[in-house]
Amino acid sequence: MSTPLKIAVAGLGTVGAGIVKLINEQGGLLERRCGRSIQVTAVSARDKTKDRGVSLEGLQFFDNAAEMAASADCDVVVELIGGSDGIARETVEAAIAASRHVVTANKALIAHHGTDLAKKAEAAGVTLAYEAAVAGGIPIIKAMREGLAGNEITSIHGILNGTCNYILSRMRDEGLEFDEVLEDAQRLGYAEVDPSFDVDGVDAAHKLAILASLAFGREVDFDAVHIEGIRRISQMDIHFAEELGYRIKLLGIASESEHGVEQRVHPCLVPRAAPIASVEGVFNAVVAEGNFVDTLMMEGRGAGEGPTASAVCADIADIARGINIPAFGIRTNDLKPAATASMDHHKGAYYVRLMVLDRPGIFADVATALRDNDVSMESILQHGRAPGEAVSVVLTLHETEEIRAARVIETISGFDGVLEAPVMIRIESM
Amino acid sequence: MSTPLKIAVAGLGTVGAGIVKLINEQGGLLERRCGRSIQVTAVSARDKTKDRGVSLEGLQFFDNAAEMAASADCDVVVELIGGSDGIARETVEAAIAASRHVVTANKALIAHHGTDLAKKAEAAGVTLAYEAAVAGGIPIIKAMREGLAGNEITSIHGILNGTCNYILSRMRDEGLEFDEVLEDAQRLGYAEVDPSFDVDGVDAAHKLAILASLAFGREVDFDAVHIEGIRRISQMDIHFAEELGYRIKLLGIASESEHGVEQRVHPCLVPRAAPIASVEGVFNAVVAEGNFVDTLMMEGRGAGEGPTASAVCADIADIARGINIPAFGIRTNDLKPAATASMDHHKGAYYVRLMVLDRPGIFADVATALRDNDVSMESILQHGRAPGEAVSVVLTLHETEEIRAARVIETISGFDGVLEAPVMIRIESM
Repeated sequence: MSTPLKIAVAGLGTVGAGIVKLINEQGGLLERRCGRSIQVTAVSARDKTKDRGVSLEGLQFFDNAAEMAASADCDVVVELIGGSDGIARETVEAAIAASRHVVTANKALIAHHGTDLAKKAEAAGVTLAYEAAVAGGIPIIKAMREGLAGNEITSIHGILNGTCNYILSRMRDEGLEFDEVLEDAQRLGYAEVDPSFDVDGVDAAHKLAILASLAFGREVDFDAVHIEGIRRISQMDIHFAEELGYRIKLLGIASESEHGVEQRVHPCLVPRAAPIASVEGVFNAVVAEGNFVDTLMMEGRGAGEGPTASAVCADIADIARGINIPAFGIRTNDLKPAATASMDHHKGAYYVRLMVLDRPGIFADVATALRDNDVSMESILQHGRAPGEAVSVVLTLHETEEIRAARVIETISGFDGVLEAPVMIRIESM
Repeated sequence: MSTPLKIAVAGLGTVGAGIVKLINEQGGLLERRCGRSIQVTAVSARDKTKDRGVSLEGLQFFDNAAEMAASADCDVVVELIGGSDGIARETVEAAIAASRHVVTANKALIAHHGTDLAKKAEAAGVTLAYEAAVAGGIPIIKAMREGLAGNEITSIHGILNGTCNYILSRMRDEGLEFDEVLEDAQRLGYAEVDPSFDVDGVDAAHKLAILASLAFGREVDFDAVHIEGIRRISQMDIHFAEELGYRIKLLGIASESEHGVEQRVHPCLVPRAAPIASVEGVFNAVVAEGNFVDTLMMEGRGAGEGPTASAVCADIADIARGINIPAFGIRTNDLKPAATASMDHHKGAYYVRLMVLDRPGIFADVATALRDNDVSMESILQHGRAPGEAVSVVLTLHETEEIRAARVIETISGFDGVLEAPVMIRIESM
């Protein structure tokens, strides 16, 4: 165990530079912890000359990451390029083909090709590790795969996208609308120029699909995730939610039922007293429920140079210590096929906000729509009166099947005096 | 890897029965996850005939745990007897001497003899694992030792005793005094008949000493922990804390400074908005700060059959998977000696509650005591006036050295009209 573990880093963006820095700065500590030294031997990037705040002296340099993965003098390839296909995927496949361990922070890659890559890694006898792909610095993959090894996981949910959580937190704290906060977040670097991956829920869905696979021992099934983003949430919804005792969070939720595995990412009303309701700003949190451990929540920074480098390094340390656990906790042969539960079968409570012309009789029509679909209402809120003008009205529906709630909303949408498509937000009891 | 891993369980209390149940119920799952089956082969208890809700059929039975550890047909001895010495320690030492891996939930044993046992285990080439000893079902030991392997830990703190947190939560929620809640907690089984280990902070201190050792790579030093319990906290303190924007929690806190390692367990005022302030009832939480990961918080059940069995099983699964990481994350030779920082050097803010006779001039005397010790006051609160009668007065002091705050309090205690020993609670900014 006294030979150094040699690392090749593919991609020298913020995180790539961060991991080179971490391994340099923490060299002694890592050697004591792992029983051998860890050494960056090669890096790849498009531009060799760019100043990244770390010295590349003495390192093999490649401008083609896949070539590095295949031919550099290394034991581990760390893939930090990103994207589900293209050069990132080629790099990982080249590394496995050359019998190198792989550490990646690439959630899109694992969400789309995780099962396939795990099979290849298993066949080659190398590790495929991706702690940094989900919830940044939070060691949730290790917790699920090892710390909760004795548990059947019954459900998992979390705040998996810091950008959305930051936007929703600031909307609530400062009374701003979505567009205003998004613009500011882009200015501050908390949101991308094209924010759709984050605000439309795709990034959170990548992470959820990975967690669901781990939790339920099934092949990763990103395409089955039901995804809604946060663009339609307004100040009105935030106020109504507060009044009802809730906060609005974008959650990823996975659970297993008789209908299969339900995977969904969408805005939720969560009770203000639920621990996850207090997770604010760019922080992420994951809550796992196990049949022995009961509830475990982990909260920390979901992105950024330091936290992501911390997670990448944890995977490297495992490899240095000789640990090689199957990528999804069990051998790929034992993974059950994906089994999607349709959202039609989802059972839950609902918040529905309507913009209506304040006219006598509208509530009677709503009541009829509810009765006809066998859905019962928990509360109705309308502030002020403005006969003949538009007012916002909120209904909350008791637990029902999603298909029934959808029919009620569709019926209501068609009423004379209902001015725009209703906003529906699912209420989670947590 | 296809031979079963054989387990001997020492102690068949709630947790012992729980782990036998877990291994029986989750057999298939554990085999898929660990690549080999796990099998209880022997148990020890004082009374063989007692009904524990699990069958002991086919198991070797011992009434002497140390004898079982030495001679049973097993690979791993799980010690669930408790206590820092006596039969628990003998059992663990016998197991190591016979080259069996050890898994224990015994915080007192590890807090008192952790370094010594780790040395013996290392010499014998076996694992000494104790995930269940700290914070119940929360996989905090694994997170510290592996998940944060790339980080220098700068500080760690947590709610480490569910009984105290339950009592403090109920005092706040229901307006009851300490004694009333304690009695009820004893009736409900949340507190022991002799509650001193819990309410006087000793149990939390055991756990803190273990976490501090792991965090800072030093020999365990339980005797150096500064310990105060929660018996003196009253409704008045809870009210004043709320008014000042804080909640009262019993925390264990460890940090490293130029003066050495500070380890302390005592009631704290924590800002109401801090995530740890929302951890209520019997839940535990641990917050680690690392130089790359920033802040990581883990929250879950700190005790009970299921959560403790979950943690014990995680250690067993690691052994089944062939993982053997040094007990404190690095080899015992690399552990630095303990280095206690005296509380005199502690710097912090303070809450001081006095019972005083409402007489003119008392505040002038207090002001003089502060000035003479170069301590500055942040606020003073007194509700109502009752000339000639006792009223409670609260001072909050700006950050200062503990030795100065102590001198102020000592001086004030001696004033004419100060009726009982002041209550001092440290304010943590988190």
